Amino acid sequence: MRGVSIVGIGQTPVGEHWDLSVRHIAHGAISAAMQDAGIDRADALFVGNMLSGPLLEQEHLATLIADFSGLRGIEAAKVEAACASGAAALRVGCMAIASGMHDVVIVAGVEKMTDTPSGSTTAGLATASDAEYEAAHGITFVGLNALVMQRYLYEYNVPVDAFAGFSINAHRNGANNPNAMFQRAIGMKEYLNAPMISTPINMMDSSPVCDGAAAVVLVPTARASEFAVGHHRGAVQILASASATDTLAVHDRKDPLFLEAAYLSSQRAYLQGGITPDDIDFFELHDAFTIMSALSLEATGFANRGEGWRMAQDEEIAIAGRLPISTMGGLKSRGHPVGATGVYQIVETVQQLTGLAGKNQVKNPRIGMAQNIGGSGATIVTHILGV
Amino acid sequence: MRGVSIVGIGQTPVGEHWDLSVRHIAHGAISAAMQDAGIDRADALFVGNMLSGPLLEQEHLATLIADFSGLRGIEAAKVEAACASGAAALRVGCMAIASGMHDVVIVAGVEKMTDTPSGSTTAGLATASDAEYEAAHGITFVGLNALVMQRYLYEYNVPVDAFAGFSINAHRNGANNPNAMFQRAIGMKEYLNAPMISTPINMMDSSPVCDGAAAVVLVPTARASEFAVGHHRGAVQILASASATDTLAVHDRKDPLFLEAAYLSSQRAYLQGGITPDDIDFFELHDAFTIMSALSLEATGFANRGEGWRMAQDEEIAIAGRLPISTMGGLKSRGHPVGATGVYQIVETVQQLTGLAGKNQVKNPRIGMAQNIGGSGATIVTHILGV
Repeated sequence: MRGVSIVGIGQTPVGEHWDLSVRHIAHGAISAAMQDAGIDRADALFVGNMLSGPLLEQEHLATLIADFSGLRGIEAAKVEAACASGAAALRVGCMAIASGMHDVVIVAGVEKMTDTPSGSTTAGLATASDAEYEAAHGITFVGLNALVMQRYLYEYNVPVDAFAGFSINAHRNGANNPNAMFQRAIGMKEYLNAPMISTPINMMDSSPVCDGAAAVVLVPTARASEFAVGHHRGAVQILASASATDTLAVHDRKDPLFLEAAYLSSQRAYLQGGITPDDIDFFELHDAFTIMSALSLEATGFANRGEGWRMAQDEEIAIAGRLPISTMGGLKSRGHPVGATGVYQIVETVQQLTGLAGKNQVKNPRIGMAQNIGGSGATIVTHILGV
Repeated sequence: MRGVSIVGIGQTPVGEHWDLSVRHIAHGAISAAMQDAGIDRADALFVGNMLSGPLLEQEHLATLIADFSGLRGIEAAKVEAACASGAAALRVGCMAIASGMHDVVIVAGVEKMTDTPSGSTTAGLATASDAEYEAAHGITFVGLNALVMQRYLYEYNVPVDAFAGFSINAHRNGANNPNAMFQRAIGMKEYLNAPMISTPINMMDSSPVCDGAAAVVLVPTARASEFAVGHHRGAVQILASASATDTLAVHDRKDPLFLEAAYLSSQRAYLQGGITPDDIDFFELHDAFTIMSALSLEATGFANRGEGWRMAQDEEIAIAGRLPISTMGGLKSRGHPVGATGVYQIVETVQQLTGLAGKNQVKNPRIGMAQNIGGSGATIVTHILGV
């Protein structure tokens, strides 16, 4: 199997882009990544996207974006795995390079969730849950996560502000990211005063609805030195790439407080890369809701069960901490354009590993992990990158 | 690159399955393919599907189907490329095996288009076209194809019944396929009397709206002999797999009567397989509309431009002809559950190559080609299979 390296990254600032169509948003990230890699052509484009059909009345999205990005003729396909679509698309890009089928592949994640022509965004997001056994009963996606969070508070008897640290950390980091949606820090006061969305999830526990796109250029590791013109420290290698699944419906799980797919996915990645959690210098996790941060840390081996929230309280997750997370703001502050998020995480992981993270730079990181979650933990994709 | 072989096939009869949900339809095909291959587990499931979001309010489809099919935990992702979703998913399956990332991969195509909870199927199908430059103006997908067909009639000055042979051939073959939606032959009289849908496309020029699923099991060729329990003549190898794209909007093309993506895709496949059109024993083409059959034959090198329709008139496309097409009924008679079609084509190609095509068996075929088209020719995926 050929090694896979990233030689170019690009991103569109996350926000409410009422003046841009999905094709423009994607093109911004793709052209930036192509420029970064010094290429004007690719063999294939794989696009991670969840909601272009329900919200934009546009399927066939990858081919549309390929053409609009000046790549007419190349292979193109959209990859969908709910909010894990971005990392799922990266998996496909890795396979395309690793197999030898292609030599230069662009993977983009894009989502346009605001100012859409049809449907409600809340209803769109609910399509990540089981349509017939969850959404049909009227529960929203936030509602499902609220049930899980409520159960966590009950089972582990933790204080109501247990999760505040995740939000405060994300905003502190996002304040220094020019591509973040919310570039401002918050404190405990803002967290405690935030309006309740779905008890116990308040506004500061939840990532925002937004638009954005991110892209990376993949090549065989053996050829990476031919590209990599935009990086200070050369190409970043994908050391491990793994995906795992669970039931869509939360009520079907043996234990709703354990992310089985995060466990499986990270274990597979650790095995592939010959890596343990101790080797990970920072972790871009999927903080769509603060409860998911805690559960992710527990399932991937960084915290004991019921204690993930303590890592936030103890500042272990800060840039200078034991395991920095959401280093560029995470889903909470950078924003969560759902199908794009997994690729933003990878772009930010590359930024950290190549010394391009600015004020949020983790000190000399060698290995970074990114984990992208679809649904309430049903599809979880883990990537470990290294320099 | 590891060779990829198919060791199991399965399909659900195509029709209006008002009593089945999309998960049941998919499960039927997947369990049949798994039984055919003699497996009870796989490493990954890639699902080709176009419309589960707009019509069923269900994204995150592949993970749902993996769980419902008893495959909880494995990798799963949906691949979308409009009506070419099925073959696009097969491409991903091939990459997964060829790269060495997985050893046993299931690729399924599924679509549920009738008795859906939301949206209109016509509006859903229009999401394959350019939402902002075609569909926004109110043109349907049939309407777009009608414009192309009208142009063909004008440019090449062919008689109005030029395309009848494609429909008659498809129905003649579908009559012998127990999984076909329309198991009855038609003649020129039925064709000429068919109600007009969008001039000059009549009911017999057009494939139907329907439900269905098909699945295949992929393994490395070197390991195929360990499986292949269900086939009379052993495993079928994927000799070539290629995809190409064009503009979504028909008006953006230099020549709306030439399927540039079919040309590129088939040329790439011929090159990969070291094959010429003369080597192809039969061709499962994408006869969503009869005009697409003619254009496909022309762009892939089987007919001169403006003369594809003559192959139907001259019976060259019949089971005993020079190049049998739509041998199990094609999209017209077997049916066109859009995201599933590309996998049905592969299942039928395997049936032919392993002597399982019953009354429609082509005589001793060695090499078969399948081509799956998304949109009005914007994404075209070609596979060449051999024994």
